[in-house]
Formats: sequence, C-alpha cells, structure tokens
Amino acid sequence: MTSYRIGLLGRGTVGGAFATLLEERAGRVEHLTGLRPELAGVLTRSSGSFEEILAGSDLVVELIGGLEPARDYVLRAIGAGRHVVTANKQLLSQHGEELWAAAREHGVQLRFEAAVAGVVPVIRVLQESLAAGDVERLHGIVNGTTNFILTEMERTGAGYAEALAEAQALGYAEADPSDDVNGKDAAAKMAILARLAFDTPVHLDQVRYEGIERITADDLAYARELGLGLKLIGTAERLAEGLSVRVHPAFLYPGHPLASVAGPFNAVTVESSTITEITMSGPGAGGPQTASAVLGDVISAMIPPASTPAPSQELAIVEDVVSAFYLHLEVADEPGVLAQVAQVLGLQEISVKSVVQRGLGDNARLVMVVHPVLESRFFAACELIGGLDIVRGRPRAIRVIEEEFV
Amino acid sequence: MTSYRIGLLGRGTVGGAFATLLEERAGRVEHLTGLRPELAGVLTRSSGSFEEILAGSDLVVELIGGLEPARDYVLRAIGAGRHVVTANKQLLSQHGEELWAAAREHGVQLRFEAAVAGVVPVIRVLQESLAAGDVERLHGIVNGTTNFILTEMERTGAGYAEALAEAQALGYAEADPSDDVNGKDAAAKMAILARLAFDTPVHLDQVRYEGIERITADDLAYARELGLGLKLIGTAERLAEGLSVRVHPAFLYPGHPLASVAGPFNAVTVESSTITEITMSGPGAGGPQTASAVLGDVISAMIPPASTPAPSQELAIVEDVVSAFYLHLEVADEPGVLAQVAQVLGLQEISVKSVVQRGLGDNARLVMVVHPVLESRFFAACELIGGLDIVRGRPRAIRVIEEEFV
Repeated sequence: MTSYRIGLLGRGTVGGAFATLLEERAGRVEHLTGLRPELAGVLTRSSGSFEEILAGSDLVVELIGGLEPARDYVLRAIGAGRHVVTANKQLLSQHGEELWAAAREHGVQLRFEAAVAGVVPVIRVLQESLAAGDVERLHGIVNGTTNFILTEMERTGAGYAEALAEAQALGYAEADPSDDVNGKDAAAKMAILARLAFDTPVHLDQVRYEGIERITADDLAYARELGLGLKLIGTAERLAEGLSVRVHPAFLYPGHPLASVAGPFNAVTVESSTITEITMSGPGAGGPQTASAVLGDVISAMIPPASTPAPSQELAIVEDVVSAFYLHLEVADEPGVLAQVAQVLGLQEISVKSVVQRGLGDNARLVMVVHPVLESRFFAACELIGGLDIVRGRPRAIRVIEEEFV
Repeated sequence: MTSYRIGLLGRGTVGGAFATLLEERAGRVEHLTGLRPELAGVLTRSSGSFEEILAGSDLVVELIGGLEPARDYVLRAIGAGRHVVTANKQLLSQHGEELWAAAREHGVQLRFEAAVAGVVPVIRVLQESLAAGDVERLHGIVNGTTNFILTEMERTGAGYAEALAEAQALGYAEADPSDDVNGKDAAAKMAILARLAFDTPVHLDQVRYEGIERITADDLAYARELGLGLKLIGTAERLAEGLSVRVHPAFLYPGHPLASVAGPFNAVTVESSTITEITMSGPGAGGPQTASAVLGDVISAMIPPASTPAPSQELAIVEDVVSAFYLHLEVADEPGVLAQVAQVLGLQEISVKSVVQRGLGDNARLVMVVHPVLESRFFAACELIGGLDIVRGRPRAIRVIEEEFV
C-alpha cells in the first residue's frame, strides 16, 4: 500500500491531538483514499529539521502559530509543491493574499478550516457550498473564551473578573487572555471570513474591534430586564459604500440564531437573499476538535472530491432502542388511578420522572414523563395500561430526547 | 473563454430557480473556475431529448425527482463519463449503492447536497470535513413542512388540521402532504445521512418512521407545562448491536441545539467524542435556496478543490455604520433627568425604543435601547450626555442587533 507522508510543524495542544488522531484514524483514511497516511516528521522548538521534514513529506501541516517562522515555512512548503494545511489565523489575516497567491502559482492546495471556529465547517462552506453566493452579511461568535465568560456572567450574575478567573480555572482562557478578551483574536478570524465571503482583500488592520473587558454584571442584569442576551459578535456586511468588518459586544433578541450559542461554543450565521440564512455551530477550540478539522482538510487534499467510497462495513439495523417517553392518559377521576398506572409501570421496571394530573369533570388527564426504557417494554406497558378499566381511550405516547447540552 | 456545458433535467421549482441562478452568477462562476457555465439544454415533460442533452453536456443536473426515469438518466450520464449533481432523495435512499458504485467505476463525481436539508451543507460536511469522523449519533429536523406545522401548533395553540391548512396556504405544504406528514420524506433523508455518517449501506426500507398526524394541541399544551418542545426528529445512532435509523415526533428540552429550530427550517446535529457536536441549520426547501446548493455542487465539480481565487474586487472598508444601542447612565435622582437626556437624543435625531429608570438613593440608573442610528452620531450624543450636570460617570453604550428571524 502506498503511503502518504505528512510533515507536522508544531506539537502543542492541537499538534499533539492531530498526531494522535492521525494514528487512530489511519485505517479509515486508507479506506477512503487508498493511501496510508503517516507522520513523516515532527518539528518542535527543540527537535527536528524543517528542511528534512519538507523533503520527506507529501503535505505539510503547520500548527506552530504566529507570524514567523510560520510564514517562511508555509511559503517554502508551497514553493516546493506541497499542499499545506494550517490553523494559523494570525498568519492568514495578515499575509493571506501572499500565501493564497503562492498556492495558486504553484498549483497546490492551502486549506485552513481550523483557523476559524475550530471544527465548525465555515471555511469549507464559504469556499465551496457558497462559492458563487451573494453573501450580504455574516455574523459570528468566533471566540470561545469570551462567549464562555459572558455565558457565566449571565448565568451566575458574576462580574467580569470573577468569570474570567473561572474560565482560566477550567482551561477556557489562557494565563494571558488579552487577545481573546480584547477582541483581537475574533478580529483576525473575521478578516478571514470577510475575505472569503466578499471576495475582497481584508487585512486584520482593517477590522475594528472592541472587547468585553468593560462589561459589567449590571449590563447583563438590565439587559435581561429588556429581554436581551449579550455576545461578542463579529460582523462582516456589504453596505452601499463598501464593506464593514467589526467585532464588538452586542445584545441579541432571543429569536436570533446566535442568541442560544452558550459556553465555549462558536457559531457563524451567513445571510443572503438567495439562501436566506445558514447557521453553523460547534466547539471553536479544543485539541481533538480542532485536530479533527485539520484531519478533514488533510483528507480532502488527498482524495478527488465527492467520491462516495464503497461501504467498509455492513452494520446490523437495530429495531428496538431505548427512549424516554411522554405518556398521556385519559382516566376516570377517582382515587387509586395513579396507583394502578404506577403499578403497571413499576412491574415493567419503568421509572417515572414527572407527573401532571388534572381533573375534567368525570374524567381526568394524567400526563407523565418516564425515564429511558427499551421501547418494546414501554409499549407492552402501554398495552396493559390501555386495558385498565379506569383508562378511557388509547394511551398516547411520544418520545422524549433527554440529552443535556452545553 | 472555454465554456462548461450543463444539461438540466427537469424544470420545476428547483430546476427553474437553478436556471435563473446559473445565468445570474455565470460571471462569478467564470471568475472562480476559468470556465463559463452555460445551459446545454433542458429536459421537461414536453420538450427536449435526453440523448441530445447528454451528448452536449459536460455535467448533468438531475432535478426530475422520483425513481424512473431519473435512475435511468443518472446511470446513463455516469456511464457516459459525466459528473452528475442531483437533489433526488428518493433515488439515493433506494438506489444509492448502485449509483455510487457506478460513479466510482466511471471516475465521475455524483454530488447531492440538495437532496437533504436544502442549502444546509450537511452532505459536504459528512463527506469531507468529517470523512474520517467517528460519528456516534446524528439528529436531524429534515422536513420543513412538519416543522412549520409543529411550530404553528406550539405558537398559536391550533390543532393539527388547522396548522396543516395554514402551511398549505403559505406554500409550506403540498396539496397532498402525505409523505411529508407521515415521516417518509424525512426517512429517505435519514437513510442518506446514516449511509454517509456510518459508512454502511442503509436503504429507505430499513428506516422506521412515524409522522405527526396524530399530534394534538393538548400534547403541546401539556408539554409546555413540562418545559418541553415538540419536533419531528430523525435519529441515526451507533449502538452496541448495530445501527438504529428512525424518524418520530420527540420532545426536546430547551437546551437541545435543535429545540430552537422553528418554522420551515431544517437542522442537523452531528455528535462524536472527538468533535463534541456540530449543528447546522437553514432553509430546507425553497427554489432559490435549494438551487443554491445545486450550484455549489456544480462549481465544486468544475474546480480543483481549495484554491482561493485572487480577489475579483477591492471593496472600500466602511468605518461608520448604523447600529441600535443600549445606553446605561448613572444619573441624579431628581425631576427632569429623563427630559434632559431625551432632549439631547432628540436633537441628534436618535429615537428611543425602551427605557428603564430605577432609583438608588441619591442616584438613579437610566437604561435605554435606541433605534438604529449612525454610530458617529450616537457617540456624539453620548459625549453631550456625559457632559450634563445630572449625569454621574461615563455613559455606557453597547450595540444591539435587532434583526428578526423566523
């Protein structure tokens, strides 16, 4: 089997997670592409030679971050005809045109999904799905640290300093959080998104930004009174006079698609008259999550697009699964009804989570939610309950999805 | 300039919108790809010859729908070495393996973003971004008709029949809505998503489905009492015994990423331990929206992936934009304060939307939201207000995003 050699520059949080993920998924990548991916070498601060790694690689993954030497390495890799995958938002927001021009000139791919919003596939969607889109506006929550802090302030009533300390304790903010909380990190990401969405050069220096450092617990309390929620929002929009790209705290009405994005998550909404609006959300950071975006780019560089490989497996289709249920019964309004129903459920080992009972003249309604149970067992219990004298009409059951999210 | 000839099969809602969009965006596609796209021919029920269109095309777009003759045409186009773009969920959920195998055999692309969730880019994300993903579960709202009906029932208290009639009047439901409301349309889409997410063959016949025909206004009222919302949910999940793919109504807790998807929108959440979760949402139907997904696929088939074209324009960067604002003032608690502030705002033609005033001993807080205004004018007013004797400390201003969404 032919191998495909990947040179990895940088082995920090994302670099380390990428190396692990690549090894774990090598078999799957081989099935998809016909090529076995392997690490050709890893450059760290203290070990490895860029020249040797470049010479031995088919593709270079740049996860060093910062401007130099990342810029130099990426340009040299492109110049040597290698595809490059990078997560470097600073580099692209300040030297993007130079790098993209080099990639066009040398006929190689330069992919950078992980540079903006981690595993949220906004780069691919702007470059491919909406390549000929007439994007009018783009709103993004593209910094997870600030979204976590604002969510905490809103949830607990904490002040900014307290919520920042909480974010640092949980690993959602770095020891020096300046570029996150002052909006500069989000500005770099908005420069990249605006470049792609509006097909015009946008440099980080052209993005106005304000951070969240001066937001107070009071602002959030009053906002709640006015029915608003607070986010650090990046905006890129086409106006009559040109393009505006900016980052600032903003209040959102509850119906806005970004209003419900909580904790360290990122999300981007793209609007145009043709598509109405698309919203994408997910984790904006995290080693494995970001590494997953890098791996998606690597695979895309390896394979011709849009081939659907033959299935590698044939999973059995499962018919009986576990679900929580809502159960609605019309019952006689007399003593002992709930006890009879509960007894049937208990015999089937079905556990009740909540109950509402309400009288309606001779009849009553009994509405309950039960904890997850094998569906066949639940429906058997429903049959038994439907046969009870005190139950009028057919029991009505609807499944309940119980997962808790961030 | 070389042209790229597209044969169009079907000219219904989506086909007509695609023909219009292709003409409108031809210049942009030419900039992206170096090829000028043109319609090589259109096959309708009453005009056009498939053989002639095929002979004169570089790529075939199939928007006829249904099983035959769509299947025959797609297979013949693939056999003739043409890339094919289709929106046909019935065809792919019942004959997908045959078509994908044919595409692999003939080395052509078969793209189908528009077959599931319209312009929501879930197919591309599963096939490319998450190609080596270890997807564990996928939840989707993949039928806009039923989501519209349930949203109406929840919003207005209407019964099922009334909400269905409303959906029909607004064009969100067809005259014969059977396959939408009974869950079969969603089941076809879930078969396709499960095939891609879990790399295993899944046929429409293997998807269990229930519709929303028996949901009552009561169910929604009691659910509200229990803090739940109701959606028609498609689920595909890996279990110890294999794979479960199913469609049924389900209650969701408010924190679930699909709980806030309202009206005719579609959304899909993909979960795995590596990526945590990604959610994508947008219009699941509509001529221009779906045509936009088809055009994205056509462009992807035309160009080598992930080249970032040179910018075709250089838009001016606009510094002063229009925003609504929240304004927070600490003021003396005495008569006439609001009048003085309002006068300054009035002179700057800034209109107040809502006000909250609250006393705090000698001081009071005045919190207001103002309607959109040029930012420079608003900040000038803040300077003036900050200079008033009755204002203590610096006025605090935060922008408000006012757009209303579905």
